[in-house]
Amino acid sequence: MNTKMIALTAVLMLSHANAQSDSPSLPPRNPTYTTDGRLIFPVDYREWVFLSSGLDMSYMDGMQMGDRHLLDNVFVDPASYHAFLATGKWPDKAMLVKENRRADTRGSINKSGKYQSTEIMGIEIHIKDAAHFPDQWAFFAFGDGLQPAVMIPQTANCYSCHAAHGAVDKTFVQFYPTLLPIAKDKGTLSAAYKHDESAMADKTH
Amino acid sequence: MNTKMIALTAVLMLSHANAQSDSPSLPPRNPTYTTDGRLIFPVDYREWVFLSSGLDMSYMDGMQMGDRHLLDNVFVDPASYHAFLATGKWPDKAMLVKENRRADTRGSINKSGKYQSTEIMGIEIHIKDAAHFPDQWAFFAFGDGLQPAVMIPQTANCYSCHAAHGAVDKTFVQFYPTLLPIAKDKGTLSAAYKHDESAMADKTH
Repeated sequence: MNTKMIALTAVLMLSHANAQSDSPSLPPRNPTYTTDGRLIFPVDYREWVFLSSGLDMSYMDGMQMGDRHLLDNVFVDPASYHAFLATGKWPDKAMLVKENRRADTRGSINKSGKYQSTEIMGIEIHIKDAAHFPDQWAFFAFGDGLQPAVMIPQTANCYSCHAAHGAVDKTFVQFYPTLLPIAKDKGTLSAAYKHDESAMADKTH
Repeated sequence: MNTKMIALTAVLMLSHANAQSDSPSLPPRNPTYTTDGRLIFPVDYREWVFLSSGLDMSYMDGMQMGDRHLLDNVFVDPASYHAFLATGKWPDKAMLVKENRRADTRGSINKSGKYQSTEIMGIEIHIKDAAHFPDQWAFFAFGDGLQPAVMIPQTANCYSCHAAHGAVDKTFVQFYPTLLPIAKDKGTLSAAYKHDESAMADKTH
């Protein structure tokens, strides 16, 4: 990172911290469930705070995407975003929504690279809700019609991977560029993440 | 697009339309300028509404990115977003912010694809402000320190390209997947865009 870009990033971090106090105080948007425990889809998530997007991200070596590409967008409810800016931690009731979209190359005047199409390939939600889940966090996957979704069983590898590698509290804050500096600053990075980082540093030296 | 995904997209469009009326009515966030006409950077843009992101998008054939990759994120002020949902058009004072970030492949546990790094490679803003600009819209580019920026001269090719190919009112709504269906539905697609689309359809038949 060159000096100019370090300055730009630093100014933005300060700006975000200041902007926080000017924001209207929206009421927390708690997760809601059906009586049999299915999560009701939060229809207004596209007006939540955007954290990041990624193209065809994979945690396995040698992954081949073939002709099908995905860009995913991650959003968080505004109250939890503000709590994270202030503390570097997720409050109870935090909801992160990952929207997967088909990525296209040729469309309109675009010739190379990838843009997001109107086709949604599924939506996943990660929720912290201590009163509802034995291990605090739970995953849900929404498909056709966005009907209330049952919790993904805790034996699924999303749980073990997030616990083993999440930078903050089982979430992949290492891939959320506005939050990672906050977590570093507040000292809330997980032992698991710091272990991964030092193992990587050892490999490259 | 398969039937399930058409259903998912349709449900989301309805959801967005309904969510609109539940949203707190934020005061419009008007662009502000220095006395000599430079645009003051809107520090809270990361809490605005996200429209889309793209990787290394290029409108020229044969573009080579080399080892340097960018993911860009586009945000719009919430009041203009709500106006667009209702009308398929941008109101005066609309502000679109494009944030360019360095995209990385290897970091933490990621092995392939691209994620967004903490390094910002510049920020551009496109503003509709009829009282300030002879042609209604203007571009500004922000760099080091996010100091107030002078308007990019109207002879720059961003102006001519947006005028010649923007799907709605000189903006690239064709790359904003939640807005394109609204513009189609409201009949606000530009003649320029419809001409491009029919020319492309002719080529592929």
